[in-house]
Amino acid sequence: METKEISRAIIERLPRYYRYLGELKDSGIERISSKELSALMHVTASQIRQDLNHFGGFGQQGYGYNVSTLYDEIANILGLHRKHNLIMIGAGHLGQALANYVNFERRGFVIKGIFDINKEIHGQTIRGIRIRPMEEIADFMKEQEVDIAVLTIPKAEAVKVSKQLIDHGIRAIWNFAHVDLDVPDNVVVENVHLSESLMRLSYNLANVSGQE
Amino acid sequence: METKEISRAIIERLPRYYRYLGELKDSGIERISSKELSALMHVTASQIRQDLNHFGGFGQQGYGYNVSTLYDEIANILGLHRKHNLIMIGAGHLGQALANYVNFERRGFVIKGIFDINKEIHGQTIRGIRIRPMEEIADFMKEQEVDIAVLTIPKAEAVKVSKQLIDHGIRAIWNFAHVDLDVPDNVVVENVHLSESLMRLSYNLANVSGQE
Repeated sequence: METKEISRAIIERLPRYYRYLGELKDSGIERISSKELSALMHVTASQIRQDLNHFGGFGQQGYGYNVSTLYDEIANILGLHRKHNLIMIGAGHLGQALANYVNFERRGFVIKGIFDINKEIHGQTIRGIRIRPMEEIADFMKEQEVDIAVLTIPKAEAVKVSKQLIDHGIRAIWNFAHVDLDVPDNVVVENVHLSESLMRLSYNLANVSGQE
Repeated sequence: METKEISRAIIERLPRYYRYLGELKDSGIERISSKELSALMHVTASQIRQDLNHFGGFGQQGYGYNVSTLYDEIANILGLHRKHNLIMIGAGHLGQALANYVNFERRGFVIKGIFDINKEIHGQTIRGIRIRPMEEIADFMKEQEVDIAVLTIPKAEAVKVSKQLIDHGIRAIWNFAHVDLDVPDNVVVENVHLSESLMRLSYNLANVSGQE
């Protein structure tokens, strides 16, 4: 299905719509008006209409949105209708936490391989997936179709390893290392910089009651 | 130090400036021009000047910014000049990963207590910090000054527990549960919704080479 060009800001908001629509769907709710969705999500109804009208004429005046149709359409836009194969680089605490998070797999993000530099954990498994040496990445990527690499390694290694992954044909990196990766235009990076998130919380905490 | 009102967008960017300035400082660099910083950060020099000029007249024409002064000033704005006491709610894989991340402590975010619902891990320690039963949160918060609660528990519990924490006087929540918390105006929440981040990556992967 063709859609109009979608702004960055709307894309940022789509996963949240997807979550609410999924919960409504699970509760057996078939239709919802922009006003009801507004009350639920604490977003103005006009914002909701503006955002969701990009995806075709789902919100019929007086009838509201068809929850299931809109849910599927957003899934489609987000690329969730297809399966994604992941490899994890780094099986430390954070890598293990992510590898153990079963909800990703439910959404079609399937971990195919886990790699770590630490010899002592090679051969161990996380949810049945064996931890392999870094040296096996190249061959692994030749044999398997890998879409996304998840980096939970220190920042100095992340830069080097991301270059190797790109040479081996990776097109998407979910980067937890606290560094900006330099990638070509055809490779996408999504950063999760936890310490920056914590700093924003710190700022907001200091400024919560106006300018104190 | 008084500063002009700072927009949300600049606050979002400040931690990144802070990181680059910290790295420059560690490398012994004392001054940097907006042009040099621009090349390093892949942000336009005019954006950098617009952002950083909010913090007083640091960028003198022809002299550039004093790295150390600007670094300290941004730390000050982000509230990093003071220590923050944290409690962790949830000692599962993600909670353990965060509790083991020593860099937070280096920035003044000190974990004072860890709480979990799972009886089997009560009394175990993470980096010397004992895992306690949830029932002890109320007394703990009376005895200790706690600034930030870190929630790494399932979303159904997160809503309930956040209400309790607010009743006990918490003012900031770092929320990893995939749910929006309903908090009063004087409580700040910073969400880390990992699955939404992964969906954005999925979207960008599907759309990287124009509209395919």
